[in-house]
Amino acid sequence: MTAFAFRLDAVDGAARTGVLHTPRGEIRTPAFMPVGTAATVKALTVDQVRATGADIILGNTYHLMLRPGAERVARLHGLHTFMGWRGPILTDSGGFQVWSLAKLRKLDADGVTFQSHIDGARHRLTPERAIEIQADLLGADISMQLDECTAHDASHAAAAASMRLSAAWGARGKAAFGSRASQALFGIVQGATFPDLRRESAERLQEIGFDGYAIGGLAVGEGFDAMCATLDCTTPLLPPARPRYLMGVGKPLDILEAVARGVDMFDCVLPTRAGRHGQAWTWDGPLNIKNARFAEDETPLEPAIACPASADYSKAYLHHLFKAEEILGQVLLSWHNIAFYQALMARLRSAIAAGEFQSLRAALSPLWADQQARAQVEEAK
Amino acid sequence: MTAFAFRLDAVDGAARTGVLHTPRGEIRTPAFMPVGTAATVKALTVDQVRATGADIILGNTYHLMLRPGAERVARLHGLHTFMGWRGPILTDSGGFQVWSLAKLRKLDADGVTFQSHIDGARHRLTPERAIEIQADLLGADISMQLDECTAHDASHAAAAASMRLSAAWGARGKAAFGSRASQALFGIVQGATFPDLRRESAERLQEIGFDGYAIGGLAVGEGFDAMCATLDCTTPLLPPARPRYLMGVGKPLDILEAVARGVDMFDCVLPTRAGRHGQAWTWDGPLNIKNARFAEDETPLEPAIACPASADYSKAYLHHLFKAEEILGQVLLSWHNIAFYQALMARLRSAIAAGEFQSLRAALSPLWADQQARAQVEEAK
Repeated sequence: MTAFAFRLDAVDGAARTGVLHTPRGEIRTPAFMPVGTAATVKALTVDQVRATGADIILGNTYHLMLRPGAERVARLHGLHTFMGWRGPILTDSGGFQVWSLAKLRKLDADGVTFQSHIDGARHRLTPERAIEIQADLLGADISMQLDECTAHDASHAAAAASMRLSAAWGARGKAAFGSRASQALFGIVQGATFPDLRRESAERLQEIGFDGYAIGGLAVGEGFDAMCATLDCTTPLLPPARPRYLMGVGKPLDILEAVARGVDMFDCVLPTRAGRHGQAWTWDGPLNIKNARFAEDETPLEPAIACPASADYSKAYLHHLFKAEEILGQVLLSWHNIAFYQALMARLRSAIAAGEFQSLRAALSPLWADQQARAQVEEAK
Repeated sequence: MTAFAFRLDAVDGAARTGVLHTPRGEIRTPAFMPVGTAATVKALTVDQVRATGADIILGNTYHLMLRPGAERVARLHGLHTFMGWRGPILTDSGGFQVWSLAKLRKLDADGVTFQSHIDGARHRLTPERAIEIQADLLGADISMQLDECTAHDASHAAAAASMRLSAAWGARGKAAFGSRASQALFGIVQGATFPDLRRESAERLQEIGFDGYAIGGLAVGEGFDAMCATLDCTTPLLPPARPRYLMGVGKPLDILEAVARGVDMFDCVLPTRAGRHGQAWTWDGPLNIKNARFAEDETPLEPAIACPASADYSKAYLHHLFKAEEILGQVLLSWHNIAFYQALMARLRSAIAAGEFQSLRAALSPLWADQQARAQVEEAK
């Protein structure tokens, strides 16, 4: 793992900050990876994404293997060249989308067969094929083992069986991946919300030996408290010298509390998806730009964030763009949200380095928790 | 018109190149103005538009008066501040969209009453109100008189009456506008395809006296040959020392042939509208990026055009974005097309300055005419 050295620079409680070195550049941790689903962070150019301070983006194997196809991307010189992103790329294994998007999926011990949600064509993923697609065809800097995402309300027996299948697939993935100087492979801890299963999973994966460890099967409906409790019992089981990646998370509050529990890497579609629908994050919490109260609001979303979408346009203008259903509104709010997430990560990194993480957490966490609670009340009305 | 001095630098046949000075910056002519319909050049940030070399953009009074409303834009410090465009802006008078978009329009000698196509609300435009909206509320650098767009197949009598109404409205618009040091007003020549009416219109407008002269009522279905013939008889009637603006035109071939006839300024939604639908212009003519032959085409659209959308992405990637219905595809093709149009204008300006316009025209015009003819055959199939 020479090219993928992970250097921890400071800790504050369980929170850590450091740098993951990769052949395509450094990843400052804690890091948020914008999601480039189908070879594009939705609505944004790579230059816009880069300008927010993102060090790494994520690509979705499921989407890319269906369209344009992994072999086609390989013929076009890999995902970096194809989409024009020069920094590191992490790809997921495709497993999660097979469970959430594909039709007629059929699991066997060897892998999973499924139909494309686009055209119904049959495809198959095995632990070995997931590695071939990610590392060989797409050319990912960091590949993920194929796993089964266990339902958050699975019984202990079902969660145990699922976790052991994922661990076995992890071993096969590692064997297929072998040892590579310029690419990394992460394993994925499963076990739903059962502490004993999370422990067994973490132990099995460390026996196999990965370049980093992801925590899967969270943010799938278990709720904020269960997620935090599961992190509380899982991150201490992971080797301190390896990066830890909480998959698919999340809202700013989720990230803050996961960083407090020692997580280093995150990805989530939320900032771009919410941005396309008019929701913008600010230090004071989220807002819906379509709300009439912004129609003549001359202030920008966050004047101190060095992104044109955050600082250069008034809320009144953004409100107008959404009322007029202009594409630029979706572009600017996606851009702002990614910039806000990167500003959040930078603030977390600085606070940890300065030993001020707990006071930052104390300032932000109750505010955001209160807003999240109020938003849930709103939704329930 | 001190702040709006128009300097002609070179002529080549009837083609001219020069600079229109405005308080917000210079406009190099021949100039193409990207259309910023509802306070946004669709899908593009102002920085992206500026980077293509556009000196000036156009705003649509009809769209802006309906949403967000001219008074609201004024309270938000005018269109430049609202949308973040620092260069000059020309606004149309709203008349053309009243004819093409509004519901239940009712024309009288004083003005026109119509219903919004958005919510059915009643609105009214008069020659005076069109000036108030453009010059006072939106803060346009160049305002257009309110006119009636005559149908291209109107009878001589109907076209004469319509043209005389427009001329009378031009006089009222000029009276309302008065004399301003830092804003300009253009009159609009009408008269359908009748040379005698175009002559009468040009004479009436010059008696009133405008800062520039637009040619209206073309590109409304009369066809390429009739448009050229009308330009042939119209541009010689306009004062050489004032800029000439052909409204709503057009395809690259239309622009090339209008420049050959002495036109200085253009606007058209075509590059952005076609871009959103997958059509890209190149020196070899237009192409549809969704065509399967581009699926593995590694070449960019135009490597020599200094725009990321033109030079940095392969056709294969753009093809993929359109097949996957990604917003970024619409962004990049809109951006490329605007960059291509600006590259065309730069090439025309250089050729005129170097006395090489006729040879450039001889190289491009037959190629593009042939392609336009073939495209029409395709459409007819």
